[in-house]
Amino acid sequence: MKIALAQINPIVGDLSGNTRKIVDFAKRAASGSADLAVFPEMCITGYPPLDLLDNSVFIDGAEAAIRWVAEHIPTELGVLIGAPVRNPEASGKRLQNAAILLENGRETGRVLKMLLPTYDVFDEYRYFEPADEMNVLTFRGLRLGVSVCEDMWNMDDYAEYHTYAEDPLGALAKKDVDLFINISASPYSQGKHAVRNDLLKRICNRFSVPFVLVNQVGANTEVLFDGDSRVHGPDGAMLLSAPSFEESLLIWDTGDTSSFQIPPSRKPVSFLHDALVMGIKDYVGKTGIFEKALVGLSGGIDSAVTCALAVEALGGDRVVGVTLPSEISSLGSVEDSWTLAQNLGLEFYDISIRPAVDAFSKMLASLFAGTERGTAEENIQARSRGVALMAISNKFNYLLLTTGNKSELSMGYATLYGDMSGGLAVLSDVFKTQVYELAEYINERAGYDIIPANTMTKPPSAELSSNQRDEDTLPPYPILDQILRRYVEAREDVEAIVQATDFDPELVHHILRAVDSNEYKRRQAPPGLRVSGKAFGMGRRVPVVMRYNRQDIEKLLGEASASSES
Amino acid sequence: MKIALAQINPIVGDLSGNTRKIVDFAKRAASGSADLAVFPEMCITGYPPLDLLDNSVFIDGAEAAIRWVAEHIPTELGVLIGAPVRNPEASGKRLQNAAILLENGRETGRVLKMLLPTYDVFDEYRYFEPADEMNVLTFRGLRLGVSVCEDMWNMDDYAEYHTYAEDPLGALAKKDVDLFINISASPYSQGKHAVRNDLLKRICNRFSVPFVLVNQVGANTEVLFDGDSRVHGPDGAMLLSAPSFEESLLIWDTGDTSSFQIPPSRKPVSFLHDALVMGIKDYVGKTGIFEKALVGLSGGIDSAVTCALAVEALGGDRVVGVTLPSEISSLGSVEDSWTLAQNLGLEFYDISIRPAVDAFSKMLASLFAGTERGTAEENIQARSRGVALMAISNKFNYLLLTTGNKSELSMGYATLYGDMSGGLAVLSDVFKTQVYELAEYINERAGYDIIPANTMTKPPSAELSSNQRDEDTLPPYPILDQILRRYVEAREDVEAIVQATDFDPELVHHILRAVDSNEYKRRQAPPGLRVSGKAFGMGRRVPVVMRYNRQDIEKLLGEASASSES
Repeated sequence: MKIALAQINPIVGDLSGNTRKIVDFAKRAASGSADLAVFPEMCITGYPPLDLLDNSVFIDGAEAAIRWVAEHIPTELGVLIGAPVRNPEASGKRLQNAAILLENGRETGRVLKMLLPTYDVFDEYRYFEPADEMNVLTFRGLRLGVSVCEDMWNMDDYAEYHTYAEDPLGALAKKDVDLFINISASPYSQGKHAVRNDLLKRICNRFSVPFVLVNQVGANTEVLFDGDSRVHGPDGAMLLSAPSFEESLLIWDTGDTSSFQIPPSRKPVSFLHDALVMGIKDYVGKTGIFEKALVGLSGGIDSAVTCALAVEALGGDRVVGVTLPSEISSLGSVEDSWTLAQNLGLEFYDISIRPAVDAFSKMLASLFAGTERGTAEENIQARSRGVALMAISNKFNYLLLTTGNKSELSMGYATLYGDMSGGLAVLSDVFKTQVYELAEYINERAGYDIIPANTMTKPPSAELSSNQRDEDTLPPYPILDQILRRYVEAREDVEAIVQATDFDPELVHHILRAVDSNEYKRRQAPPGLRVSGKAFGMGRRVPVVMRYNRQDIEKLLGEASASSES
Repeated sequence: MKIALAQINPIVGDLSGNTRKIVDFAKRAASGSADLAVFPEMCITGYPPLDLLDNSVFIDGAEAAIRWVAEHIPTELGVLIGAPVRNPEASGKRLQNAAILLENGRETGRVLKMLLPTYDVFDEYRYFEPADEMNVLTFRGLRLGVSVCEDMWNMDDYAEYHTYAEDPLGALAKKDVDLFINISASPYSQGKHAVRNDLLKRICNRFSVPFVLVNQVGANTEVLFDGDSRVHGPDGAMLLSAPSFEESLLIWDTGDTSSFQIPPSRKPVSFLHDALVMGIKDYVGKTGIFEKALVGLSGGIDSAVTCALAVEALGGDRVVGVTLPSEISSLGSVEDSWTLAQNLGLEFYDISIRPAVDAFSKMLASLFAGTERGTAEENIQARSRGVALMAISNKFNYLLLTTGNKSELSMGYATLYGDMSGGLAVLSDVFKTQVYELAEYINERAGYDIIPANTMTKPPSAELSSNQRDEDTLPPYPILDQILRRYVEAREDVEAIVQATDFDPELVHHILRAVDSNEYKRRQAPPGLRVSGKAFGMGRRVPVVMRYNRQDIEKLLGEASASSES
């Protein structure tokens, strides 16, 4: 039997577009003599559809879309798709997350998702009732162990801790299956490819059954999906592997367990690079309303990398660069921006913000009389740039890309409504040290310094006051990023971080406090491309108004345990 | 037996502060001869603690706080508190949401929450494993049917549809209870008081058992809790009722079923008013970092009402008003702002934005040459105001209050980084027609026109271009607000709205499209005070990048059903 892995890039909410795409891929699969074409989780709606699922007209539409697909696919082909379906029970969440088998113009089988992820960016319990048992689908004599995304991630001897009591794959295996198929909308994060390799090898080894994984590709607002669909043989070896970050149709003959194609080995940074390029491309392509992307160029590394990625995503003729020097900006910064723009072939403008900064100084002179120059004045510069960039964005219908990185955003080292302005934050989940890696990779790929050497070697500076350097306020980035990664991503607290790194506890305390107290800025940040296991945005939900005092907790721990021993 | 209802206002994350407050209220309850003091759900951490719950140090601290409370409460008193506890099972979510009975220095009983709300602002499945059965707590001979918040909202004959299969109160009643106690963190929304009255009457009628409800009070970022704790007798009559929107300690003698104190009847708008005042007060009080609140006064109704509410929350000496006229602003607008500021006794500044607007015009002149004046130029004005207000906020450590209403925010009739700037959006969940009701109520309470008559009678205008009126772009607010309420809050779609209102389908389509396509602005809006069942913010999760086309869905529905009949 031939199985097609249809790694498609649906648009969230676009029922008719997604439906046409599914039928198109199904026809291509049939042309390749496939018996069964497998599509990603929730491919009818795109993932994540979020609260669109609360709209009953949308669900009516999704049901019609399923019927429409059933009626338009080639009759010789079985098609397995993912979609929301109504819960037939008299109580419980209104919907279920289903894999639906379509043949001969109608539904011939259905499997419901059992494990509903409700962590990080996932909110599946908000909408769905879980399956209470797993059933095997029979297709042309083959017993298919079909599961949906999270269902494959809780095998009983895999995880260190099991968030769910159930093991859907184990349950399916007990019912005797010839083949596992998992349809996924499994987000990309750095290192995820290797994690999937490891998991699938273990599953196949454990159950001695081949495994077909079909994952969504594409970016939907902040969540990126890499695809990475594949087939593993019953011994765990990878037999087929779809390219990451692009649509693909692979066809696998179930009799063929020898066709191992080792994918060319890739630098880790290349995945990150491709993910970000796809994120920009899909934001612009899927919204479909922007003529070009706009980047404010400071001469620094973040805006340079953002700009280079935008050019790869959209082409040099669809990216506009603007440098907005103040009286504090170094000449070098403007020159570096010019050089970058020339290297990338950009439309480029140089607009001094001095008139605006002077105007605000004048407007506020009497009110600010007698105060010292400080953050307020620095932010006026950043916000004057924001106003000018947004005016250009509004006037010409350009998407303003936000250039700040995760290190800055963690520490609140950014100006709300200033450099935080924009529709999409390209690097907001990339630590500063990784921005340098991206820059090196971009230059290496190009074969010359697209990003000027000076941009890469000069000390980072916000250039909002004279001779300012990031390191005046922040620890060196290699140290800062280690601490931030442990706190924000790995959720270690002071004690664990100090133990692991031997950094000064006061420094660690200071950084964690800065992260906590700048939540109000991040709450108003534009959506950012998620490339780690824990990005700022919808997957990290922290109160803005709170008092979280580690010293108080330590005191409480001391007092309470002391007194319980008495 | 005497039971104290301790309606407290905890601060999210403030374990030691909340713990001290609990012990303080417990001592006051003991002074009133109470046998048992009942506190709200999750009072140890404040609700909602969100992802603080993912930090194991925070959970260690919460456990220590529980022990500390046990050791410091009066020995003659039982205390029932709410807190997160670790799930002892080998799998499942790491935590459970518990009601814990403390007596004589230790825990003597525990009930776990069975129904975990995971809709709107709630994310409880993100953190908690549900209880699989309900157990009765025995306290000094009384059999207490204790439940946690949502557990009381699914009685089998109450709801039209049951989101959960279980009925915790029914399960408790079968185990023979003398008294129901529910500890809650149940948010305020307009009309919620009446809904609780109705539910509690039905519960008591059904089971013929008295009911003690203790609810959290106070604002935590965007979610407001009204308190509204109460006792209902076994016949459903209300015996005691705590004031809304303030802390309170009531003591009820279980033998006393006759002490019915009818609370003075209140205008519905008074609840809304008090909720918003509490929201401002708690944002400023709980963050504890702002000297004063700052409001940009346009002469319009939104900024006037925001300012008046801020004065009630903080006092006139802690509110600063600034009018920022442009060349387009009417003289009347500046005069109305002056009058309002005088009425409220505010520190008041008049700062023309003309220098900034001129500066940006000059800076962008060559780039914008040959284009028509439009949104870009209008937004420059709004953003110049934003820059000036944020500069004042940064300079003097004032909290900038955002003044936009829900009607505008729904339609995207607001400028990102302009009038949308600020730390807290006071009216972002209040439709324009309700802003007028608030203004009338404020003036009625004052006994004179705090909000100038002219502000209330002139046609609403953004004053970003000459002779501009909101109604040039938007339908009249009484019509708009009806449609928005049905779409955003009741989740009706075009057909249902047209059926219910008889409005022009094209108008309804237009408005719903405007709501959908402005999600990108709302994603970057400051937190707003939630006063409806569906506010923008954390309780409404809609994709920014999506294609949701109603005509496409109608076409799909037509085609698919047509062909399934063939």
